[in-house]
Formats: sequence, C-alpha cells, structure tokens
Amino acid sequence: MSPPLWIAAWALLLHGCAAGRAPQAPSTRNDIRDCSADPPYLPPTATNTTARLAVLRGILRTHGIHAYIVPSTDAHMSEYISKRDARLGWLTGFTGSAGTAVVTWDKATLWTDSRYWTQAERELDCNWELQRTTSIESIATWILEVVPAEGNVSLDPFLFSIDTWNSYSRALHGSSQTLLPLETNLVDQAWGDQRPPPSSSEIYSLPAEFTGSSWQEKVAGIRQQMEQHVRRPTAVLLSGLEETAWLFNLRGDDIPYNPVFYSYTLLTNTTISLFVEESRLSAEARQSLRSGCPGPLCVELKEYGQVSAHLRHYAQGNVTVWLGTEYTTYGLYAIIPQEKLLEESYSPVMMSKAVKNTHEQEMLRATHVRDAVAVIQFLLWLEKTVPQGQVDEFSGAQRIDAFRWAQEHSRGPSFQSISASGLNAALAHYSPSNGSSRTLSAREMYLFDTGGQYLDGTTDVTRTVHWGEPTPLQKEAYTRVLMGNIDLARLIFPSNTAGRTVESFARRALWDVGLNYGHGTGHGIGNFLSVHEWPVGFQYNNVPLEAGMFTSIEPGYYRDGEFGIRIEDIALVVEAQTEHQSGEKPFLTFEVVSLVPYDRNLIDLGLLSPEQIRYLNSYYERIRAHVGPELRRQRLEEEYAWLQESTEPFPVSSAGTAAPGTLALASLLSVLLSELGA
Amino acid sequence: MSPPLWIAAWALLLHGCAAGRAPQAPSTRNDIRDCSADPPYLPPTATNTTARLAVLRGILRTHGIHAYIVPSTDAHMSEYISKRDARLGWLTGFTGSAGTAVVTWDKATLWTDSRYWTQAERELDCNWELQRTTSIESIATWILEVVPAEGNVSLDPFLFSIDTWNSYSRALHGSSQTLLPLETNLVDQAWGDQRPPPSSSEIYSLPAEFTGSSWQEKVAGIRQQMEQHVRRPTAVLLSGLEETAWLFNLRGDDIPYNPVFYSYTLLTNTTISLFVEESRLSAEARQSLRSGCPGPLCVELKEYGQVSAHLRHYAQGNVTVWLGTEYTTYGLYAIIPQEKLLEESYSPVMMSKAVKNTHEQEMLRATHVRDAVAVIQFLLWLEKTVPQGQVDEFSGAQRIDAFRWAQEHSRGPSFQSISASGLNAALAHYSPSNGSSRTLSAREMYLFDTGGQYLDGTTDVTRTVHWGEPTPLQKEAYTRVLMGNIDLARLIFPSNTAGRTVESFARRALWDVGLNYGHGTGHGIGNFLSVHEWPVGFQYNNVPLEAGMFTSIEPGYYRDGEFGIRIEDIALVVEAQTEHQSGEKPFLTFEVVSLVPYDRNLIDLGLLSPEQIRYLNSYYERIRAHVGPELRRQRLEEEYAWLQESTEPFPVSSAGTAAPGTLALASLLSVLLSELGA
Repeated sequence: MSPPLWIAAWALLLHGCAAGRAPQAPSTRNDIRDCSADPPYLPPTATNTTARLAVLRGILRTHGIHAYIVPSTDAHMSEYISKRDARLGWLTGFTGSAGTAVVTWDKATLWTDSRYWTQAERELDCNWELQRTTSIESIATWILEVVPAEGNVSLDPFLFSIDTWNSYSRALHGSSQTLLPLETNLVDQAWGDQRPPPSSSEIYSLPAEFTGSSWQEKVAGIRQQMEQHVRRPTAVLLSGLEETAWLFNLRGDDIPYNPVFYSYTLLTNTTISLFVEESRLSAEARQSLRSGCPGPLCVELKEYGQVSAHLRHYAQGNVTVWLGTEYTTYGLYAIIPQEKLLEESYSPVMMSKAVKNTHEQEMLRATHVRDAVAVIQFLLWLEKTVPQGQVDEFSGAQRIDAFRWAQEHSRGPSFQSISASGLNAALAHYSPSNGSSRTLSAREMYLFDTGGQYLDGTTDVTRTVHWGEPTPLQKEAYTRVLMGNIDLARLIFPSNTAGRTVESFARRALWDVGLNYGHGTGHGIGNFLSVHEWPVGFQYNNVPLEAGMFTSIEPGYYRDGEFGIRIEDIALVVEAQTEHQSGEKPFLTFEVVSLVPYDRNLIDLGLLSPEQIRYLNSYYERIRAHVGPELRRQRLEEEYAWLQESTEPFPVSSAGTAAPGTLALASLLSVLLSELGA
Repeated sequence: MSPPLWIAAWALLLHGCAAGRAPQAPSTRNDIRDCSADPPYLPPTATNTTARLAVLRGILRTHGIHAYIVPSTDAHMSEYISKRDARLGWLTGFTGSAGTAVVTWDKATLWTDSRYWTQAERELDCNWELQRTTSIESIATWILEVVPAEGNVSLDPFLFSIDTWNSYSRALHGSSQTLLPLETNLVDQAWGDQRPPPSSSEIYSLPAEFTGSSWQEKVAGIRQQMEQHVRRPTAVLLSGLEETAWLFNLRGDDIPYNPVFYSYTLLTNTTISLFVEESRLSAEARQSLRSGCPGPLCVELKEYGQVSAHLRHYAQGNVTVWLGTEYTTYGLYAIIPQEKLLEESYSPVMMSKAVKNTHEQEMLRATHVRDAVAVIQFLLWLEKTVPQGQVDEFSGAQRIDAFRWAQEHSRGPSFQSISASGLNAALAHYSPSNGSSRTLSAREMYLFDTGGQYLDGTTDVTRTVHWGEPTPLQKEAYTRVLMGNIDLARLIFPSNTAGRTVESFARRALWDVGLNYGHGTGHGIGNFLSVHEWPVGFQYNNVPLEAGMFTSIEPGYYRDGEFGIRIEDIALVVEAQTEHQSGEKPFLTFEVVSLVPYDRNLIDLGLLSPEQIRYLNSYYERIRAHVGPELRRQRLEEEYAWLQESTEPFPVSSAGTAAPGTLALASLLSVLLSELGA
C-alpha cells in the first residue's frame, strides 16, 4: 500500500489543480453543494449534520469556547481508527482518512488534502465549508479571522501530536486568543449514546511459534537500553498501540485491519504497568502477564483510563521518562515536567521492533510465499475472467481477499483493498465501493494494491496489469516504474544510510523522460502488525536503514483521467557481498520477499539495461524456487504452469543499452551468413 | 575544492581510528607532546604560548571569568579569515582552519576534527590539551567539569553563530554556571599591539562588463522581495561579506583568496546603510554609491564599527528585520527583539546571488575556458617534467598558480592549491609547504585541486593523474569515481529537488563494490567571489536546485597511507529537454562548465556503460569545441595537440555492460570469418 501522502509539497504540486472551481457556483464557495438554493441542494451522498452541529455548538457556548478543533486521529496517533474514534466522520459526514474540522458558533469548516477534495464535496452538507489545504498555518489564519478577540480556541490535547499542538500554539501566539486544552472531548459529549461502544472482543497471546522472542526477553532488552542510555531513563512510556502489542506478544481487533487493542504501557526499571481493559484479556494472556508476579517481570494491569493519573503520580518522583515524540499525544507529554523527559523521535520499543530478528525474518519470508500463492491465483483468475466482462473493481477486491483468507494463518486483509481500473487508478488511493465500481476490461490497465494479515506476518503488494494492447506510453511508463523498483532493490549502500538519500534511485528512470510520482517510495511493515510500520522508510523522518528492517519499495506513475501504475514489493535489508570493505560495518542491500511476477505484456525490454534484466531473471528464479513448490503442495497445477510461463527468463541480449553495438555486429553477421549461402 | 568537512558523522566513522593513542604517553594526554619531561619536550613545529596564555589569564581574572571560549571564525562567519582574525591561531599555535579553544585559569584545551589531529599535535605546545572531537556537547561537558560552581563562562557573541550560541546555552542550562556574552574580545586585548592592523587596501567597483546587473537593479529586486513577503519586512541585514560585495558590485582583498572586504549592510525599504571604512573606497566606488543621493538609492556610508549601535537604534522602531540565520552572529541577532525578526536560513541577497542571470552564466562559462587552458598547460608540463624527478608538490602548486596568473582577468588562486602525491592525497585537504613536499613520480598518483579568481568568475577543478602503471585497484577506484561524477552530471531531475536527495548518484558506482568517500559531493561557487558559495550544494542544509545555480560535483576515494582520488567539475543547473512534461516547471539537469579531460590512463572502459561512454564523448566534444579555439588563439599548439589526443572519442562498443552479448556475437563472427577464409 502506498505510504500516507502526508502531503508532500509534491503531491500538492501534482494534484493542486485537479479539482477546479465549479464555474456555476454563485457564492464564494467553490464546491458542488449549492447552498444558495432554497431548500439548499444536498447531494444524496452527503450527511445532514445540522442537528449534531447544533448540539456541539450548545456545548461550546456552555464552556465559553469560540472555536473547537477536531482532528481525524485517535489518542494513539493511529493511522487507522475504530468507529468509536471516528469523531471527524460523525461530525462532518466526511469519511476520508485525513482532515481537520473547526467549528465555531456560526461556522464549520473542513480542511483536507487533494486526495479527498472530490469526496469531501460529495459528503459534506451545506453547513460546511471546504478548504483545500491542510497547513496548520491556514487553519490558524482562518481561526484568527473568525474568532473574536479574547476568544477561546479549544481542542482535546489527547488527540493531537506534540508537533501539531506546538504549531497551533505558535500560530496563535501573539494574538489575543487563548489556546485551551480541554480533557473532556466535546464531540464525544455531543455524540452521546449514539457513539459506538468500546470494543469488548478478546485480547489474546500470540502462540510462541509466531513470536520473535518472549515478552520477558523483550522487556529485558528495553531495560538494558535504558541502563545504557547516557541519560539513564527510569521509564519508557508506550502510547503507540503496536508498541504494547509487540512488547507483550498480544493481539486484539479494536481497529480494522490492524490486530491491536487500546492500551498504554509504562515500563520502568523495576515495574511494568499495562493500561488495558483487564476483562478482555484471555485467560492465557493474563496468566502469561502475571507469571512473574511479584517481581520486576510482573505486569500490573491497570484501567486504560488511568494512564494520565498514574503518569502524573509517577512523574512526581526522581524519574526520567523516555518517549517517542513522533506519536505521543501532547496530552500525555504535557503531564511530564520538561526536565524529566527524554525525548527521541521513536521509543526504544519502536526502534527494536523495526529490526526483525532471524525468526521474525523467516516468518515474514514464509508469509510472503503463501501470500504470493493467493496473488498468483488472483492474477490467473483475472486473466480468465476479465475478458468475459463480469469482474468489476469491487468484486475483484472481494476475490483477492477471499484467496488470501484461504491461505494458512490468514487473519484477513491488512488494509482496504485498492482495486482500480483505467482512470480510477490515477487516484493513488482509490478503493471501490459496491455501488459505483468500474468493470475490468482487456482494453484498460488494472492496478491492485492489497495485503494480508497472517499470524506470522503482514504483507502488502501492488501489481498493475493489462490483458490487451497497452499504449506505447503505458508500456514505457510501466517499464520505467519497474526499472525504478529494480534500481532501488538492487542498490548496494553503506550501513546507516538514510532512506531519503537513496529513494531517488526509484525515480531516475522516470525522471529521465520527464515523469515522476507524487507519493513516497516506501514504508516499514510489521509481523502481524501494522501495514505501515514506523520508523522505517524513505521519507525525511525515517531512521537510517539497518540489516533486518523490512520496507516496501513502490514507485508509480499516475496520469490524471487516464491510468495509474504502481509496482510495490516488500524488501528485507540484508548485508551485501562486496568486493571491497570500507567503513566499520558491511554494506547493505535489499532482498525482495514479495514473490509475484510482473506483467510481461507491459515490459519494454529494449529500455532495460543488461544488469536490470539479469536482476529480473535472478528474481524470477527465486520466485520459482520458493513459490513453485508451495503451489504444487497446494495442488494448484494450473497456477504452477502459469507461474512457469510468467517467470521465463528474459534474453539479456535484448537489453536496450546493448543495442547499438550488438545490432551492428548482428547485421554484419547476417550479411556473412548470407554470403555463406546459409 | 572539496566542501568543508563540517564533520559529517561519516568523516568521523571513516577517520575516527586513524590517529591512535600513543602507547608511550605516560599521562592521560594522548598526543606526542611529552609534557612529563623536564624541560617539557616541544616539537620544533610548535609555538610557545606560555606568555600569551599568562596575559589572557590575567585578563580573565580581572573580569571574573573562569572559562573563555575562542572560535576559529570571524564576525562574518567567513570560511577564510584574515590574519587579524586568526585569534585561535595566535593563542594556540594551531594553524588549521577549524577548531575551538577554551582557556581557564589553569587549563587550555583545543578541540578539532580528524583532518587536523596530526597537525594539532605538531603545532600545540605543552600548555595545551588536544580533544579529538568538535561536538559542542563535549566542549560543554569539559567546561562543566573544570569550571567551579557559580563560575562564569564567557565568549565574544560576535564570533558565534546563532546555532552555536544556542547549543552552548542549552548545554550549560540547568548548571550553576553562567554563559556571559562579552562584547570586548579578550584575546584581542591579550594580543595587543602585536595584532595585525586592519586592511587599508582599496575597495573598488567592478567594471560594468563584469557585473550581472547594476547595484541599483539588485537593490530594487531585493526591495521587491521585501514587499512581496507575507511578513512585510522593513529591512534586510547583511552580515556575510560576499552579500555586501555582490549587492554593490564592490570588491576588496581583506581575506586571502576571497575578493571581499569588511562590511555590513542594512538595506531598508527607504534607506541603504553600508558600514565600511569609507576612506578605503575608490573615488569611482564612492561616486557610484552616492550617485542616488538624496533618495532611496542613496548609500549612506557609516563606520564599520557602528553597525551594532545603528541596528539597536533601528530596532526600536516599528520594524521587521530579515536576516539569514545560517551565518549571522548571535551578537547582531540578539540586538533585534524576537518579534521584529524575520528569520530564514539565508537572506534574499544570498538566495538571489545563488541564481546567476544569463550574463553571469556567460561570464562563468568564459572563465572556465581560460581556466581550462591553464590546467591543460599544467597537465602537459607535468607529463614532460615529472619523469625527470624535479617537480615536487610545492613547486607543482606554484606552477599551476603561475599558469592561471598568466590568463586574462586573473586575480590569483581562489584557495590554497591542494597538490598531493601518493599517500598525501589520502588526506582530502592536504596542502604542501615549502619545507616538506613530496616529489612527484611516475610511480604514484597525483591529485591537484586548484582554482582561480578572475574578474568574470571563480573556478575550482580537481584532476587526479598517473603517468606510469596504476594498480588495478587505483584504476578501478578512479573509474568508479569518474562514473559517479558522470552519473550525477547527466542526471535529469524535477525542478526544486534538494541536492541531498540526488547526491547518492555520485556514490553508487563506488558503493557497488563496497567503497565510499567521507566528504560532501559539492558546493556553490561565485562570480569573482567565494569558491564555496552558500547555499547551493548537496548537503542537508542546502536549498533546492534551480536553473542558473552553479555547483561543484566532486566524488572521490581515499585510501589511508596509499593514495587519494578526486574528480571535481563545476556544473551549471540548466533546464533539461525531456520527452514528456510533468509538474509545473521543466525538469533540470547539469551542464558541466569545467573543460579539462580526465586521465585516460586511469579509466577502465570495461566498467563504463554505453550511456556513460556516450556522455563522456559528448563532453569531450564540448571541450574540443570551446577550449580548442582558445588554445590556438593563445598560440599553444603543443597544448592543442595534447588536447586533441586526450579527447579522442572512446569506442562505445567497449562498454563493460555490453560485453556478454557482444562478445558472443563477436566470437561467432570470428568463426564465420575464418570459415570464409578471410
């Protein structure tokens, strides 16, 4: 799955002009919701928010608050959220994954990025203005304009990152307005008993065979890092849901696609406090956590809601609390006095989790073999079914999900399947819905970006295919995206290199002819955890690459209104075998663990260099060696035959760059052969 | 010239172990200066600093100061400094370009980076400790240990950048010690009348033919940027010496190799104040500056030393002062109240100067043609003279300088020539001295990194040559450095791409076999200004690349104790011709303006791809087209013949990557030919 756009300036440059001003709009509002009509025109796709806004405004007045900021995140800065946390969606009707709303006594505005402008126009009702940016500066400027002097601007500090809080605070600094953190969430008050209840499903221990090490070993490792740190922290605070899930080898299903559960952990040098709904723990899980009691490996179970109070109490002592500032909320952060904080971008748990040990690597490799079987089944099924015109984007997505469910250890998709035909694929994050879904056709390209959760690992793979006659541009663009994927995958680089300094290798083949893509190039991935796992990747805020990390590699190319291409594989960072050695650590390279062939119909071999073709052939050999036997074991003989055909080695001599010299010799040869009378 | 190491973690990783602990050192001091002997052993290369330290300590006691921090920079954060500003050198005896000294009542310590450890050991006397790091944290930790509680730590705030001040301030925060900025410089007091006097040489106007636009046009352009800026600044403060020199088209010679003069400028929306020693201005310069008086284009001349007072007065008004935080001193910065500051990394003058207009580009191209003549003369001279064994590094440097001086518009070298034979070239910044200079030999590699100042431009070029039989490793490493240079130079990339995201292309050919280099990949360069011109380059703190910028491209490879390779060219960022167009601006690429052939003797053609060879051939064609006629015009016929020979096109068919396919065909061909009886 392509990494969150988190609004690279690029994305805005590329898409900034896509959603134009509707020329017929009589008001200053540049969207399709005509509010000057009487009664106002409301698209059938919009939600009527008049009543809920009235309730919220009543609450604002009671509290003397003039503007209330509502974000799209939850208290753990999760990328996916539960329905209970979908406050922005409930309040606005807008169901996109990223946005910010601000409600005043007489105005309501939503800010979102270019991915969601069309969707927001369809889903917002007449009460809402849409602002086509997400810059906090823009939000703050708007607030400064509409909120009266001396007014109160408020938000729930447990739903904002430290950075975001600071940005608002800076932007309003010097104005006469006050930024007021309010621990009670006012949207929740307005939502009342209509708000979905908290999850009550079981939280379970992962069987030992699916864990990299026991939770006791993990705790010991983190405590060792605390002791070795120059600041000698006395505790680590974990607020990322995957941090606690990973540390204790526990899983739940509180959030769609992510096997995590609501929790916090305060791990001190002598105690362990796990903040979670105790009754939800399986008997086995509870027993495992309590097996070391009393003692330093005893997990004390505390109410989820008690974390603030407990932390406040703990912070009164002679302590130093280590936390990851990238994903801790301002609410928690502000509880700890500045001089007792050890701030790093990511906690030691996040950093440890990112480097998979040998067993975790083996599990992820094995997961990808089974996942490849499902994807190959899907590709063969499409090849046979699409020409009959009975597959659409939605049924296609259902089918790939079903193929995955049938694989061993499957726990369903790892994110909502992206299944996009023709021009729909030009929207990098398009997902089909049942009602409006394009029929797949041999005359169009089809892009599917899907992944699975398995007890032994998480997968994420994108392939783009064409069953008919691609245009020259489609073929060139596909080949160049593939060249980028290959160039980055086969790169050898020094240990400790930041992803951002090498990600351009995935773009160069496109850049050569003036093309590019507007999203990031990759993201980390978990062992039966998040499909976007921080802090690995190629963005500016990712950590340097180390052996044992997994990342996606996913260049693409998108042509508005025409087609979209993305080729995504998961790759493991491994030590490289180099002729020479320099520096203190071996150089690194990638081992691609996604094992699905690319579409031969879309590859223009003449563009590839001999090295790229040789790399491709050796990759295909690995696919045959690993996936072939599994297909046979599962008695998928037709798929096996399809795989053999799809992974036939490419002739190296057809490489484009070798052409001039080789061609000259070849034509001379043919002259000679004819002279020989051959 | 290679960019300042500014201590990339890389450099420390690579060289961190080079200077080991001397095993015989009886004390904790890990250097060769044996202070336990009686009398202490003092290397003949060291300076006796006992007396000057005694004077400084007397002054410290008088002021109640317990530790005084002395940096290596001047009040303009210049990279090169005048003798009058060489406070660190005078106080310590250490003549390296980067370091920090701290003197307490009974201790004196110097911090410097790995480039200078050996030199510091030789130059420091017994009074000094050497610390092999430059981290401010390390300096602060040392201060916290040796300075008594409640002690005063002091420094001259006009010699520290904002960042450096903040780092000291943070590091000492929470301790009982006070960080005390003192406007009087205590080293200057100690230095007394032995301190070199200020420069009195003439400051002159550049003839109009050598300027990109008039100073009035430049001022108008900056004022326009002030008006268009959202913060509506009322003034721009210029403290970088090349800012004022560029803005007014003035030059001087206060600093070796850099044609600048001590000055500050405060450019407001209605006035222009130039702080400079008025008597030093040529009549013509004064007339030009005063030609618009009275009026908004009248330059008011004020004493150089009046800048603080004037700024303090100006900052009392309803003003906003725009400045570049990367190079403004904390002393000036602190004068302006926080809310009246518009802080950006670089001032609009620095940003405008970085993008050369058409005339400036043409001048730099022309400069490089004449500069190439000098370098080619040198290469031919070396080829003829080195085998006789009578050239050493020092006389070589003198010779290239002389060849440059002979070229039209020459104003001498643009930095101290780097001329390094054999193992000396493994030190990336080695410069020879008259006494200790290695003889050049056909058995060793020779690296020279030199440049010239000309009225129409500044140059900087590095070539590495071998007149005998290079080892396979030397040839491979040289070829891979060249491949890196070519790969970056021929890269096509989107407008507004940061240099740091593409600099890895200069490293990949080395990375492929486990090699690398420990310095940056390039830096901006001026029009008869600094050889290292901010803010262009490939480091993290450089600005995105734009058409019209010039940067060096200079990968290298260094093998301790054996040899060093660097290939450096200056390149202009130009618009690329691409098959497709995406984004709002055309894609970019480089046009290499240094026009000197590489050493054929060191190129292993088998490693190059056909594209790299084609690029090389087209570069050589450009060299012939531009430098050939100039050589003839200067009647340098032997050099002309040498150039023709050195720029013979390489056969593309010999490209390494084409080998397998081509070889198979070629051998088949030879069989057929023999059958034909040919």
